[in-house]
Amino acid sequence: MVRYRINVAYDGTAYAGWQIQPNGLTVQEVLERVLGEITSQTVKVHGSGRTDQGVHARKQVAHFDLQSTWPPRRLRKAVNALLPEDIVAGTIARVPHGFHARRSVREKEYRYFVRNAETVPPFLRLYREHVRRPLDMAAMRHAASLLEGRHDFTAFTANPSRAVGSTVRLLSSLRVSKRGSEVVIAARGEGFLYKMVRSLAGFIIKVGEGRAQADEVPRILASRKRTAYVPTAPAKGLFLWEVWY
Amino acid sequence: MVRYRINVAYDGTAYAGWQIQPNGLTVQEVLERVLGEITSQTVKVHGSGRTDQGVHARKQVAHFDLQSTWPPRRLRKAVNALLPEDIVAGTIARVPHGFHARRSVREKEYRYFVRNAETVPPFLRLYREHVRRPLDMAAMRHAASLLEGRHDFTAFTANPSRAVGSTVRLLSSLRVSKRGSEVVIAARGEGFLYKMVRSLAGFIIKVGEGRAQADEVPRILASRKRTAYVPTAPAKGLFLWEVWY
Repeated sequence: MVRYRINVAYDGTAYAGWQIQPNGLTVQEVLERVLGEITSQTVKVHGSGRTDQGVHARKQVAHFDLQSTWPPRRLRKAVNALLPEDIVAGTIARVPHGFHARRSVREKEYRYFVRNAETVPPFLRLYREHVRRPLDMAAMRHAASLLEGRHDFTAFTANPSRAVGSTVRLLSSLRVSKRGSEVVIAARGEGFLYKMVRSLAGFIIKVGEGRAQADEVPRILASRKRTAYVPTAPAKGLFLWEVWY
Repeated sequence: MVRYRINVAYDGTAYAGWQIQPNGLTVQEVLERVLGEITSQTVKVHGSGRTDQGVHARKQVAHFDLQSTWPPRRLRKAVNALLPEDIVAGTIARVPHGFHARRSVREKEYRYFVRNAETVPPFLRLYREHVRRPLDMAAMRHAASLLEGRHDFTAFTANPSRAVGSTVRLLSSLRVSKRGSEVVIAARGEGFLYKMVRSLAGFIIKVGEGRAQADEVPRILASRKRTAYVPTAPAKGLFLWEVWY
């Protein structure tokens, strides 16, 4: 068996997320089908992690094994010729058998995009959360700085029982930036809980709108309980941005 | 009657173009319906010009008359609340009765976007023409420079009989630029013939691919005949970019 690593970008709008599941088409499923067609084998694709229904990926990374060697550039051409236009294969490379797209991850970055203006340009409507009220950047940055670091993030996950191991995660960086009407919340860490980035984004946006206080972060973290006070930001604003190995 | 000017951005993917026609939904139709709902009047919207099926607009300009005065900002809010997300109203302003969205146009700019790379990012798939072969920028710029100016553009329109007045137009500027994998063909002029920008783009791209010669431009213009040698580039790469009054 020969192992390959593949970078994949996708528009999550039409998919029930990355991972194969009984209801709804997933990106993993489409990739496996296309690789199966090309190689006439049953190919299992392992992603760096799941993305939820409607979440996008600028760069998802996955690995798969083939029974024989394929020139990576030719394989990529064949894959892209068969994939729908909302899923695109980037670089494909041969990797050692020790490489595992999920277990070998060193760090990941997600970016959450908000359009903070009266309207969203029609060309971005599938890729931006829309917030009309002017966002208080200083307050958002303060909240983000209090969330950075190693914490029990139970209050910022939609389902703590789905956590692998504990609910403690190292959020190595959480930055809020603004360029024109575009506000970006970038979260970097070795791993994230279920819907954690959208919960962090939801809370930080709420702080920016003046409907929550940054200073409440320590209390919320310590509560280790998810309440409706922390909203989950909509999927369409979220991009899996980068995966490091 | 009170006259208003409205800037409109739209994703043309789902529409049969700007102008109302018997088959298929158009942007003008959606706007008239929404303005009619808000004002309880029959509102006729006059655009700066047509855009074809599938062509986008970063900025289309139109005017319409209402029986009574509306605060422009409130009107814009109401319009955007009722419009689908792929049509967005920008500024609305009261204008003198002498203003006419089509007849008062001084100049217009269209931009044609090409992704010149092996793949198109999934998020741009509806907004870019895809050309894999590396484009020869110098040749494209040479072709563009020969097309600039006042010419009979019969060879670059899909239907000369639809031309208002003559088939002579002043193409005041035709520029080809490149940033990364993105090639942009920007055409500016006081008016354009039917599918003229897509024909200019189609020919310039063909020159960039080495399948046509820039030096043929004078001969093609002089022929005053449209042939299959000048292809029409796909609608999805084209944006009505700016309208000046």
